Amino acid sequence: MLKKVLIANRGEIAVRIIRACKELGIASVAVYSEADSEALHVQLADEAYCIGSKFSSDSYLKIDRILTVAEKSGCDGIHPGYGFLAENASFAEACEDAGITFIGPTSQAINIMGIKDIAKDTMIAAGVPTVPGSKGLVADEHEAVAVAQEIGYPVIIKATAGGGGKGIRVARDEESLIKGVQITQKEAQAAFGNPGVYLEKFIEDFRHCEIQVLADEYGHTIHLGERDCTVQRRMQKLVEEAPSPALSEERRTEMGEAAVKAAKACGYRGAGTVEFIYDYKADRFYFMEMNTRIQVEHPVTEEITGVDLVREQLKIASGEKLTYQQEDIVVNGWSIECRINAENPSKNFMPSPGRVENYLAPGGIGVRIDSAMYPGYAIPPYYDSMVAKLIVHADTREEAIEKMKRALGEFIVEGPGIHTTIPFHEKLMDHEVFKSGKFNTKFLEENDVMNS
Amino acid sequence: MLKKVLIANRGEIAVRIIRACKELGIASVAVYSEADSEALHVQLADEAYCIGSKFSSDSYLKIDRILTVAEKSGCDGIHPGYGFLAENASFAEACEDAGITFIGPTSQAINIMGIKDIAKDTMIAAGVPTVPGSKGLVADEHEAVAVAQEIGYPVIIKATAGGGGKGIRVARDEESLIKGVQITQKEAQAAFGNPGVYLEKFIEDFRHCEIQVLADEYGHTIHLGERDCTVQRRMQKLVEEAPSPALSEERRTEMGEAAVKAAKACGYRGAGTVEFIYDYKADRFYFMEMNTRIQVEHPVTEEITGVDLVREQLKIASGEKLTYQQEDIVVNGWSIECRINAENPSKNFMPSPGRVENYLAPGGIGVRIDSAMYPGYAIPPYYDSMVAKLIVHADTREEAIEKMKRALGEFIVEGPGIHTTIPFHEKLMDHEVFKSGKFNTKFLEENDVMNS
Repeated sequence: MLKKVLIANRGEIAVRIIRACKELGIASVAVYSEADSEALHVQLADEAYCIGSKFSSDSYLKIDRILTVAEKSGCDGIHPGYGFLAENASFAEACEDAGITFIGPTSQAINIMGIKDIAKDTMIAAGVPTVPGSKGLVADEHEAVAVAQEIGYPVIIKATAGGGGKGIRVARDEESLIKGVQITQKEAQAAFGNPGVYLEKFIEDFRHCEIQVLADEYGHTIHLGERDCTVQRRMQKLVEEAPSPALSEERRTEMGEAAVKAAKACGYRGAGTVEFIYDYKADRFYFMEMNTRIQVEHPVTEEITGVDLVREQLKIASGEKLTYQQEDIVVNGWSIECRINAENPSKNFMPSPGRVENYLAPGGIGVRIDSAMYPGYAIPPYYDSMVAKLIVHADTREEAIEKMKRALGEFIVEGPGIHTTIPFHEKLMDHEVFKSGKFNTKFLEENDVMNS
Repeated sequence: MLKKVLIANRGEIAVRIIRACKELGIASVAVYSEADSEALHVQLADEAYCIGSKFSSDSYLKIDRILTVAEKSGCDGIHPGYGFLAENASFAEACEDAGITFIGPTSQAINIMGIKDIAKDTMIAAGVPTVPGSKGLVADEHEAVAVAQEIGYPVIIKATAGGGGKGIRVARDEESLIKGVQITQKEAQAAFGNPGVYLEKFIEDFRHCEIQVLADEYGHTIHLGERDCTVQRRMQKLVEEAPSPALSEERRTEMGEAAVKAAKACGYRGAGTVEFIYDYKADRFYFMEMNTRIQVEHPVTEEITGVDLVREQLKIASGEKLTYQQEDIVVNGWSIECRINAENPSKNFMPSPGRVENYLAPGGIGVRIDSAMYPGYAIPPYYDSMVAKLIVHADTREEAIEKMKRALGEFIVEGPGIHTTIPFHEKLMDHEVFKSGKFNTKFLEENDVMNS
């Protein structure tokens, strides 16, 4: 077993990892920015070292400083959490080079899944369903029209060098496709110096479903069922649940098997998530991407399977064999997670940090809190606005919703200038569409939840 | 389903019941003493009424005032919690007379189990094992000697009119038995005006095991396995766990079946607990008593079975049929509860209440807090010193102990003059004898845990 682990992160996920370390008898080392000197992860770890200023680029993203702390404090493992350096292949490689165990997959696996077209080609080769589209780039608008005739409209034109929502255009008919390809090629040449574009079927109405996988370094790979993360605002997940209210048992099994194939195809090790577009109208799913790290929403899977995923990460990184077989994973009940962000849902989710003067977390049966807040804690404005995850577990979706309402009603996070998404979640849990379980990723665009 | 329930209690159990009501859509009405006007149960309930002064006898025990509030506020049910009026047959009867559902068994069942010799006779008739002893009273020392020869030494001489530890004497041989019977008869005559004594086998070294039962009003009765409450200080439970580390599968099954027989024998309805003396040396168990209410330690059963016992109480009281069959109750993992009392474990557990200035409950996977504390809460000195229950759930006993240590280490309850049993529990979780699982009810007498 690993003896001493550095946690290269902050906030609730750092606390989550420190807790798992303590329960396994592993010593924990925190790193922190100057803005986080009073943070809970700093208080809970066995040791803590300041690694730079409030800017992530000068602290949580500083690979050399983090490695120096790990070496000086005698760590044999580094857990990257999520965000920051978690999917940075160079960081994983630097750990490998320094002889410190990176608690995650190999840098090679991160690379395969981090580069879009390599990931897609790998999935196609492995027999994982991907969104239908052109094989590689399309030479011109004539080839594009031929592809579109094959896969059907609407289609999406994507610049291969694009990213972050740029170099993307939807075409609903031949005319707009021809124009679209020409314009996108020109724009891409101008913006990215590369005119290459490819086509994919545009799936307008879909749910975001994802499969949690675990793999040990001996190739034994299992999945732990799906999470449904369809409630999103501007591509940002706000509520996650497990299981999904939309998947049939048959599709669930297929998706799980596809995720295991995906993980095996990149030689995956550790905990990872294969994200899928679920086209519920056609009842088909397609590979979206693989997140090669622990995810924010991992607790809902833990609640319904009873498997402690961070504990498993630490055990796998220690070279242990996975003790679960696929048939050991049994889904029990329903779990929902609400992300509590320091944002004002009545003012377009404007970030609203500050000092937490009154703090009381809900408790009782079936309620779990993963948070780094405490009374008197000053939420720094420099990082992600998520300050707590409220997770419930009950027998059914209906009961989980009632429990979440009860728990949200007890949750107190107050201070000068502070707003949180608690009132939003309270409205959401009472919203007929949410309660029906029938919605897609446009749900929050199409419904003014705060004024419902 | 009941529409509006009055909670005739305070502290964490009142909060527990209010939470269950909220999750079922039942309105909740709190009552409180003048000392509890700022209590959490008052804040969380839909309505709250002051019913008297800080003295329990003038508030939480005032049957007439509680019924008046229930009637005026339109309650159709009253939940008594534990302690106070929970096992008061007159209170149950008064509710019955007022046409308000008492959330518990009938007054008749409370009476049967509340009177020692009736309870024992009922158990013998039902075929539930009881401690071997004389059939009723012994006439004189000669009969006592004959009984002792049959059941074996040591024996315990009990005055039938005694109670509270008075009129009890242990005899380890014939000589001390003859003297003991004569003295106890005389003392009993003098103290209680009734010289009657009876004999029971004295079981010196035993574990306290108890079985949770649930019964609906249609006679369907199931058990939910055992809790082990062997860690006691002066008959006061401090730590409870489920399952028991001492019971074999065979004995567990027998004990469960005996508990169901006990419940059926008194026409039981609702949630109840049948307590047993487990003579682990002889691998035999005997009926001790039945608690006709929800117990403090009910959460450990909830954690390993997934059954919400207070929810079931409310559903049964609403006339619903129990939806669980015996075979639905599957034990999953291990749960431990530590009672956090406002007592100083370094000063002989002296009560140490005060205002909680710093408060932070532990969180994360497998950790549950049932408490009525909040930052700024003044623990009143007038009631039971228990201020929180910290409950963990893990796969194995060993993992549950590690998780409990981790959670205790995070728990902050600080204020001027306040001490809690948190340091005691931290020491206990590290104690070799506790970790071994091999101990009896004398464990804390024989081991100075705080200085270990």
